[in-house]
Amino acid sequence: MIKVALDVMGGDNAPYEIVKGAVIAVNENKELKVFLVGQTAVIEETINKLKSEGLSVNDSLLETVEAPEVITNDEAPVMAIRRKKDSSISVAMRLVKEEKADAFVSAGSTGAVLVGGQLIVGRLKGIERSPLASLMPTQKGVSLLVDCGANVDSRSAHLIQYAIMGSIYMENVIGIKNPKVAIVNVGVEEEKGNALVKETYPLLKSRSDINFTGSIETRQIPYGDADVIVCDAFVGNAILKLYEGVAGVLLEEIKKGLLSTTISKIGAMLSKKALKNTLSAFDATKHGGAPMLGLNGLVVKTHGNAKHNEIKNALIQCISFKNQGINDKIKEYLSE
Amino acid sequence: MIKVALDVMGGDNAPYEIVKGAVIAVNENKELKVFLVGQTAVIEETINKLKSEGLSVNDSLLETVEAPEVITNDEAPVMAIRRKKDSSISVAMRLVKEEKADAFVSAGSTGAVLVGGQLIVGRLKGIERSPLASLMPTQKGVSLLVDCGANVDSRSAHLIQYAIMGSIYMENVIGIKNPKVAIVNVGVEEEKGNALVKETYPLLKSRSDINFTGSIETRQIPYGDADVIVCDAFVGNAILKLYEGVAGVLLEEIKKGLLSTTISKIGAMLSKKALKNTLSAFDATKHGGAPMLGLNGLVVKTHGNAKHNEIKNALIQCISFKNQGINDKIKEYLSE
Repeated sequence: MIKVALDVMGGDNAPYEIVKGAVIAVNENKELKVFLVGQTAVIEETINKLKSEGLSVNDSLLETVEAPEVITNDEAPVMAIRRKKDSSISVAMRLVKEEKADAFVSAGSTGAVLVGGQLIVGRLKGIERSPLASLMPTQKGVSLLVDCGANVDSRSAHLIQYAIMGSIYMENVIGIKNPKVAIVNVGVEEEKGNALVKETYPLLKSRSDINFTGSIETRQIPYGDADVIVCDAFVGNAILKLYEGVAGVLLEEIKKGLLSTTISKIGAMLSKKALKNTLSAFDATKHGGAPMLGLNGLVVKTHGNAKHNEIKNALIQCISFKNQGINDKIKEYLSE
Repeated sequence: MIKVALDVMGGDNAPYEIVKGAVIAVNENKELKVFLVGQTAVIEETINKLKSEGLSVNDSLLETVEAPEVITNDEAPVMAIRRKKDSSISVAMRLVKEEKADAFVSAGSTGAVLVGGQLIVGRLKGIERSPLASLMPTQKGVSLLVDCGANVDSRSAHLIQYAIMGSIYMENVIGIKNPKVAIVNVGVEEEKGNALVKETYPLLKSRSDINFTGSIETRQIPYGDADVIVCDAFVGNAILKLYEGVAGVLLEEIKKGLLSTTISKIGAMLSKKALKNTLSAFDATKHGGAPMLGLNGLVVKTHGNAKHNEIKNALIQCISFKNQGINDKIKEYLSE
């Protein structure tokens, strides 16, 4: 049985979509048990609403854990984690720390999740920094961007660990055999790069336990040229957020264009379905969020605006993580 | 009279589209004179071809300058600039250095243009690093990203100069009054950032000669939230290339979607014109390339695949640069 502690109070669509994701996830996967962590009254009310909507709720696989406090996105993460010991994030993370749960999932404050991951769940012995790894949709499927926001001003030793943990994750959780690892760079020639990349490149190249393919220019990321993309968190964060921004603006403009004339509106109606099918390849939500790697348990951060489908997929991701023994594999590498 | 030295041999569409851009530019602007720098025979042949196509060629505003060598994109930039003294880039840049030309325009090797800018044209006294500033299309118009590729591992003093030079450029060449300056960051809260940003932020904030608006997350860049966007070249290069990559892949996928069924094809036909109109706002070529700031003259790098329209716009950009006395304004700031 895989047990996941779910932060029911975090995210733009909490608690309804969060709880709904959990209810559907355990209905589809009998080996999954979810701790619904949050305000009991709110959770009960949501469960009742879902029941009244006709959803079958499997009470034996859902357990409510009371957490009276809520951490909002506006709060300074370190302060919030330190002060709000009874917040849904803190309580749920303690379940992982105490090995009552295998994994943690939240759509709440990214900062609080990152801080809580380090302070409450804690890093595996030997892991210097725990990166946030984001699953990014590409033309070929999905790539893992590590680190996309946890540790700025990283050193080459950190990036090496990111490459290894990312490879283990992609191979075992996402199912990509011998994943291609690349480092973000300003060009593909070996002499290119800033000080960090120039130092890290030969170290990555010398490792036999990863499939390092060299530098990747960001232009190639959406084409899916690499499976694991390694970089400092400042650069990774810039990449992740720009990806969202450019896609968002372009789709907005396209919609505006399609609705601008009567004739184009008819055209839009006719092409809507085909367009939707093609663009669904770029739907990040079906991969279920960003894992934080190298902790004593799995911590998964979904999008703040996650709906039940993304929550469900994030919960299901945890099954492979546990079944494939990702942390044992990371520990194995650390002991080598 | 504004004189521009144009590298006729550089770029995917050289020499035809390059020369054509020059011919049209001088036809439209009588205060512009263009030195066509490259292999005389090739230039003559191209001019004759353009004439045979019915284009009127104003010989008095176009002057051929012989440069027998060509620098390709595959060559290591520093070596190429040092060895090929008679390349079109080297010869054209010397015209700027010797004040025979006010500006230089090329669609050729970015590396060679950056190296040549520093080594041949040279920096203005007091400028520590000369950044490559890219004009990026946004939902509101255009923003200037500085530095998008010239100097990695930059220091805060460099970023301050980028902010000032960028502001002068946007105000005087692009015509945006009191341009908003922002620094790329992982969040908008003042305590966020890596070491470089944390050091630079208060320095930018303390300056009264720029309109500093704080941090910008890359997600907001395509929405046009800032006019001048300052960052280290490694980050800027990642932003610039990802912008192109995401837009490229999305438009490819949309096209694929539109052509995937008979009905969607009819829909595409009907909506094509409206779509084209809306997306033309995102056409980077109409702004005419990326200026390299802080040199003894203007150096403009256009896209490698630039066609005559982008070359023409790049040439016209040089008129404002000279007429507005950008370098005098930069010198003024340096003497303060």
